[in-house]
Amino acid sequence: MKDRAAQLFKDIQVHICRGLEQVDGVATFRSDEWNRTDSKGGHGGGGITRILSNGAVFEKAGVNFSNVHGTMPAEFAAKLGAAKAELPFSATGVSLVIHPYSPMVPTTHANWRFLELGDKRWFGGGSDLTPYYLQEDDARHFHAVLKGMCDTHSPEYYSRFKKWCDEYFFLPHRAETRGVGGIFFDYIGRDDGADLEKVFSFVQDLGFGFTEQYLPIVEKRKALPFTEEQKKFQLLRRGRYVEFNLLYDRGTHFGLQTGGRIESILMSLPPVVNWDYCPQVTPGSAEEQLLSVLHEPREWV
Amino acid sequence: MKDRAAQLFKDIQVHICRGLEQVDGVATFRSDEWNRTDSKGGHGGGGITRILSNGAVFEKAGVNFSNVHGTMPAEFAAKLGAAKAELPFSATGVSLVIHPYSPMVPTTHANWRFLELGDKRWFGGGSDLTPYYLQEDDARHFHAVLKGMCDTHSPEYYSRFKKWCDEYFFLPHRAETRGVGGIFFDYIGRDDGADLEKVFSFVQDLGFGFTEQYLPIVEKRKALPFTEEQKKFQLLRRGRYVEFNLLYDRGTHFGLQTGGRIESILMSLPPVVNWDYCPQVTPGSAEEQLLSVLHEPREWV
Repeated sequence: MKDRAAQLFKDIQVHICRGLEQVDGVATFRSDEWNRTDSKGGHGGGGITRILSNGAVFEKAGVNFSNVHGTMPAEFAAKLGAAKAELPFSATGVSLVIHPYSPMVPTTHANWRFLELGDKRWFGGGSDLTPYYLQEDDARHFHAVLKGMCDTHSPEYYSRFKKWCDEYFFLPHRAETRGVGGIFFDYIGRDDGADLEKVFSFVQDLGFGFTEQYLPIVEKRKALPFTEEQKKFQLLRRGRYVEFNLLYDRGTHFGLQTGGRIESILMSLPPVVNWDYCPQVTPGSAEEQLLSVLHEPREWV
Repeated sequence: MKDRAAQLFKDIQVHICRGLEQVDGVATFRSDEWNRTDSKGGHGGGGITRILSNGAVFEKAGVNFSNVHGTMPAEFAAKLGAAKAELPFSATGVSLVIHPYSPMVPTTHANWRFLELGDKRWFGGGSDLTPYYLQEDDARHFHAVLKGMCDTHSPEYYSRFKKWCDEYFFLPHRAETRGVGGIFFDYIGRDDGADLEKVFSFVQDLGFGFTEQYLPIVEKRKALPFTEEQKKFQLLRRGRYVEFNLLYDRGTHFGLQTGGRIESILMSLPPVVNWDYCPQVTPGSAEEQLLSVLHEPREWV
């Protein structure tokens, strides 16, 4: 399963990069292969990081494939529900964050992964949308495609994983979600008796279906005009994205603490970010409307 | 002692803001008073946040005074060396981060604070310098002024606190220090038998002496010309500053977890920041020289 999952994630990476290049129309992905040294000093696997920068549509798009293994530090094993002791592990997955240049085009993140820790094995992942100027149609489309893929596999997946996503991508210090959500799931197949073959097929659908979730939104919004003020609002909102990723994101902490490749982990950070002191939004404005949705997650389908 | 410390920190805030305004010559500080609600719902003290934005020299300078009290959550009490149980606490201090516009002028941070937790009381603090284009003279000046102030109070303070600073302001994932250091100390007077009156006087010297450490460097460098490439390097290095503050800084985590005022805690974040994928520096360049110093802290006096 591990090898098949790794091959699947590699194929998903290629598929998604191709889709992004087509929509961008100008820039192409550079590709870096890298190796990882395990905490014990031995060969710890590696990966392929693909980055597109300064495209016509995408300011920074990173799609990372990794397939690593080694010894998991006791503290992190405990955080993943195992006993607090060093354990052999392997982790393979694909992870992406797309930062468009235009504030009219939402940012997105997705990740699907397969983990082995000691004698446990499971899949995790999800995808979510972070708009700056919210078009409700976009949120509905993103969620509807997700729900369609979930429903094929289990009638309870979508509502469960949608809720999980709203809870996970949440900034407690701002009391707001990172965006309009999507789905998030973890530990599927570990203790729940789920058939890993079926979960594999679910993750396969999600990975290859991702372009259908996101790219139609990009096509629809990429040519919209925008003002300097709207661009500025995007740069401030990107600050929240950084706050979430560095303060709370488990994937980022996992990578940094298990000796992952720094540039591949932090490729998620936006290319240009602003932090102002006490930025204000005008009552009744589009900016305030976005914040109100982030303060109270909605049902989109 | 608590009230005297609070008054001292307020006076230091005024003194430093006045010095910064004089050097800037154009912008002035705005001042926001704020109140804090404690985790138990009662009045939890407050503070005064002063921010200068878009000055001639300083792009964003924040100097925050706070004087808060309430119930410390058990988890954080344990992190501060107490038993893992809720405890009454008070904390008063002044904290500043200065981001100049020019990459030729270093960023600086300083903080001095007095804490009461249960039946323990102590002072902590320090100041450190983060240059983008390192002038060794500046690092020597900054450290020499610090050492002078330390030596008046104890012959062992400077070397002990200089080392503590290098260890504290360190990004393990980058294997580099945040800058060229300064001093950092904590828990002074708690269990070491130090006379709190004498520590008070030490902190008083540091607080009022800070302008002497930093402002001559600003005066010396503020009119230097710089290129777009040098500005770009500063924006990338500011990314490391954000990484440190959000991933590791105890003050930031303390503030966020004890219900501090978000805008006052995160005023430390730079106004404009860049993250590129795999930025390169030219061998032998000034940029590489800075990195080599950050990878191996030096003695400056």
